[in-house]
Amino acid sequence: MRIVVDAMGSDDHPAPDVAGAVDAARQFGDTIILVGDEAQIKAELAKQNSSGLSLEVVHASEAISMEDKPSKIVKSKPNSSMHVGMALVKDGQADAFVSAGNTGAILAVAMLRQVGLGRIPGIKRPAMGVIFPTKTHPLLIDNGANTDCRPDYLLQFGMMGSLYVERVLKINNPRVALISNGEEEGKGNSLIKETIPLLEASGLNYIGNIEPKEFMQGAAEVGVVDGFTGNLMMKTAESIAKYMFNTIREELYADFISKLGGALAKPALKRAGAHLNPDEVGGAPLLGVNGVVIIAHGRSNAYAIKQAIGQARRVVGNQVVEAITTGIASVQ
Amino acid sequence: MRIVVDAMGSDDHPAPDVAGAVDAARQFGDTIILVGDEAQIKAELAKQNSSGLSLEVVHASEAISMEDKPSKIVKSKPNSSMHVGMALVKDGQADAFVSAGNTGAILAVAMLRQVGLGRIPGIKRPAMGVIFPTKTHPLLIDNGANTDCRPDYLLQFGMMGSLYVERVLKINNPRVALISNGEEEGKGNSLIKETIPLLEASGLNYIGNIEPKEFMQGAAEVGVVDGFTGNLMMKTAESIAKYMFNTIREELYADFISKLGGALAKPALKRAGAHLNPDEVGGAPLLGVNGVVIIAHGRSNAYAIKQAIGQARRVVGNQVVEAITTGIASVQ
Repeated sequence: MRIVVDAMGSDDHPAPDVAGAVDAARQFGDTIILVGDEAQIKAELAKQNSSGLSLEVVHASEAISMEDKPSKIVKSKPNSSMHVGMALVKDGQADAFVSAGNTGAILAVAMLRQVGLGRIPGIKRPAMGVIFPTKTHPLLIDNGANTDCRPDYLLQFGMMGSLYVERVLKINNPRVALISNGEEEGKGNSLIKETIPLLEASGLNYIGNIEPKEFMQGAAEVGVVDGFTGNLMMKTAESIAKYMFNTIREELYADFISKLGGALAKPALKRAGAHLNPDEVGGAPLLGVNGVVIIAHGRSNAYAIKQAIGQARRVVGNQVVEAITTGIASVQ
Repeated sequence: MRIVVDAMGSDDHPAPDVAGAVDAARQFGDTIILVGDEAQIKAELAKQNSSGLSLEVVHASEAISMEDKPSKIVKSKPNSSMHVGMALVKDGQADAFVSAGNTGAILAVAMLRQVGLGRIPGIKRPAMGVIFPTKTHPLLIDNGANTDCRPDYLLQFGMMGSLYVERVLKINNPRVALISNGEEEGKGNSLIKETIPLLEASGLNYIGNIEPKEFMQGAAEVGVVDGFTGNLMMKTAESIAKYMFNTIREELYADFISKLGGALAKPALKRAGAHLNPDEVGGAPLLGVNGVVIIAHGRSNAYAIKQAIGQARRVVGNQVVEAITTGIASVQ
């Protein structure tokens, strides 16, 4: 397998991106193609022990930052690492593209006619699936690719999410639910209400509306939501988890006995934290584009980048793009 | 002050509702009017030491459950504790109505011509403000009263939230922000984008779009959001907090050393939990109705009910309804 990593993606690029790529090449034995500023990448590689690993460097003269507007980069930075890296996948020289960069820019580049992968025929809007870091690891889709949604988009999100879970997580006929403000009939906004009949008639294993609590408890494997709400749910979860750990840390330092208890309980608290660590689940698949694209967190460290590359391998190896292509063709 | 408590509201009614009312009567010295099934209320009161407290009981022959559809209760249960209790406020016999019952039903009854308080003139949609249980205690508005919103609703939510914070929390010229999926220009769904110019021109201390992380860190005192997204944010926060505490508890019981550490650190963990306890902040004000209505969590215990009554006292005492009435009139 040949996987492209955007070396200019993460907030601290290229160090975590390069280190994660080296770790992935070692662990998985695949070829990793690092795309970005050649001099910077080589300087980072020199710090790593990469002998015997299959690593390639492809130069890209521009890098997209978090401040770049997705609508402008098409013209302003045509030689970015995203453009160059995505084109390698489009041209069949690589199997997947992994980036921890500006999500809006990744989406925009993925849709470009010249270098982008484009949509799978029949797919109206690609969507970001994200593995929610609670015990049952449900998939939340969309996590922010589409801030304004229509019922027919949500129907396709459910279909794509279902196929991803079936292929990658090996769960047969996964349960699909709409995430809403209540389970009762009549709950939800107009988007939810209009989507319900489409999902009911879809042939998917649609189980109804569920609230975030039920979603986190594992009531469904796929939670369908518009990208604006999904993104805020995910960000709220991350922020509250971080806030709680900080609060617990502060309270554990408030007196001697607590400090002692905290020291003894540290491994347990660390294990509890690992459950909720988004780095573990490794990158969000952008489903519906005609190729494999994995979006990692901007704050990714080397471990998170390596996990995202692992995610890319699973999506390629389990032929998720092919499954969505066949799936959507069968309902057109 | 005379405050009506819906004795049939909470999931475990009437025990927590009555016990909370007794505690509030004792702590605040106000008159609490318990509305609901007289026999049940009196049986509960008999279990409490309420001698010398100003408690009244008003009978209502029906009770609204969580399963009742808000659209149906107007006709199906015209003698519910919500109808009877709200009418006492409407008729000037009480100053505020507190209920831990079905939120949709409270909203519906509040809007009824006969017994409801109706809207403050000029207010398009009442909205639920909820104090987010993080350190700076920001107000999130709307928390679910309006699942489909328009920009002019959100503008009014910002205005009402700002007046509430100014009056009740005594923060001068509070910062108002839109909660969005990013802070950069161009982020947000179409509702957010259309609301921005209205807030910019509003005269409020509008500071722009913020993400959940910044909101929880105290970047604004008022976070404006549509009721669908706001409700899911709040429910996600509650669910993740609960999930984390359960995960920590499990891990602390995994081995002897952790168990010992957990025992020593227990008070610190308890204090950390109290920070995030929604019971502490005590009920969500329904802003924009022509009277004081406080909505408590269905899972409220006696303490949460007492805190909700405390919230009602502050909203009445600081004349929030009068401030909104004057405020909205000045911009019509």
